[in-house]
Amino acid sequence: MTQPLDPATKKTVLRQFTYGLYAVGVARGEERNMFTANWLTQVSFEPPLLALSVENDSHSISMILETGVFAVSVLALGERELAGRLGKRWELRPDKLDNIPLREGTTGCPVLQDALGYVECQVTAEVVTGDSTVFIAQVIHAEALREGQALTMAEAGFRHAG
Amino acid sequence: MTQPLDPATKKTVLRQFTYGLYAVGVARGEERNMFTANWLTQVSFEPPLLALSVENDSHSISMILETGVFAVSVLALGERELAGRLGKRWELRPDKLDNIPLREGTTGCPVLQDALGYVECQVTAEVVTGDSTVFIAQVIHAEALREGQALTMAEAGFRHAG
Repeated sequence: MTQPLDPATKKTVLRQFTYGLYAVGVARGEERNMFTANWLTQVSFEPPLLALSVENDSHSISMILETGVFAVSVLALGERELAGRLGKRWELRPDKLDNIPLREGTTGCPVLQDALGYVECQVTAEVVTGDSTVFIAQVIHAEALREGQALTMAEAGFRHAG
Repeated sequence: MTQPLDPATKKTVLRQFTYGLYAVGVARGEERNMFTANWLTQVSFEPPLLALSVENDSHSISMILETGVFAVSVLALGERELAGRLGKRWELRPDKLDNIPLREGTTGCPVLQDALGYVECQVTAEVVTGDSTVFIAQVIHAEALREGQALTMAEAGFRHAG
């Protein structure tokens, strides 16, 4: 018989999980956006696939659903402020990309010039689950921009888990 | 026009991603197994859901497919050796759980007594994708065992990504 789930304990344990921090770039026509993500993992070697969870009420999710592509830039250690800025909701900060050095990926999605590297992905499956949608996506292009350590949730002091 | 994917660059960038290390416990009848996983992330707050990628040719995948449950123990800093041991394929090390202090979760799945904490999960969806299957699973029980830092892939020096 399964005991009931204690919400505080659940939160404590889920916050013991380890996460990186990534800037996900999306494009639709002339529209561009980026958002900070940590619920992201590789899920297959062959072919190379990622899973990315995106909140159903986010501004960017419709762009991914329509275009089927997104780019993942790996944030570098020291870019906590940038991660926080890109994590603001687009509705509150529609200008959040202003003055951030960007380039355009082969898919048209924006990527960070100062990232350690980036991958561009083509969605192959989507699972609407809970408050979010899990996109399974194949890596179709990659660029390594520089060496260095990645920014982690622990180092940033962020807590998007639990 | 999308450029072709360079395998070496793809590997470099995917290895910039940040991962924790977890021991996943499974049970079927009297059978028990645990394996080391890093392709794991929370994917929803409400309800609390995880995504876990499991290789299609693994010993444990049939146990998850049949029972629909698994437990995730959060490995603590310093448990690199244990992570390596649990990462051996069951076929080569069917005795790999011997002498590891375990307890039984409410689902019957084994968990590590020395973990920082653990969650037990009920599968709600599965996506066969590439060489692996992504299980989406709801957290149905959680126990926080002790405070401490989690073991990360970077600290362990493991490279299960790319």
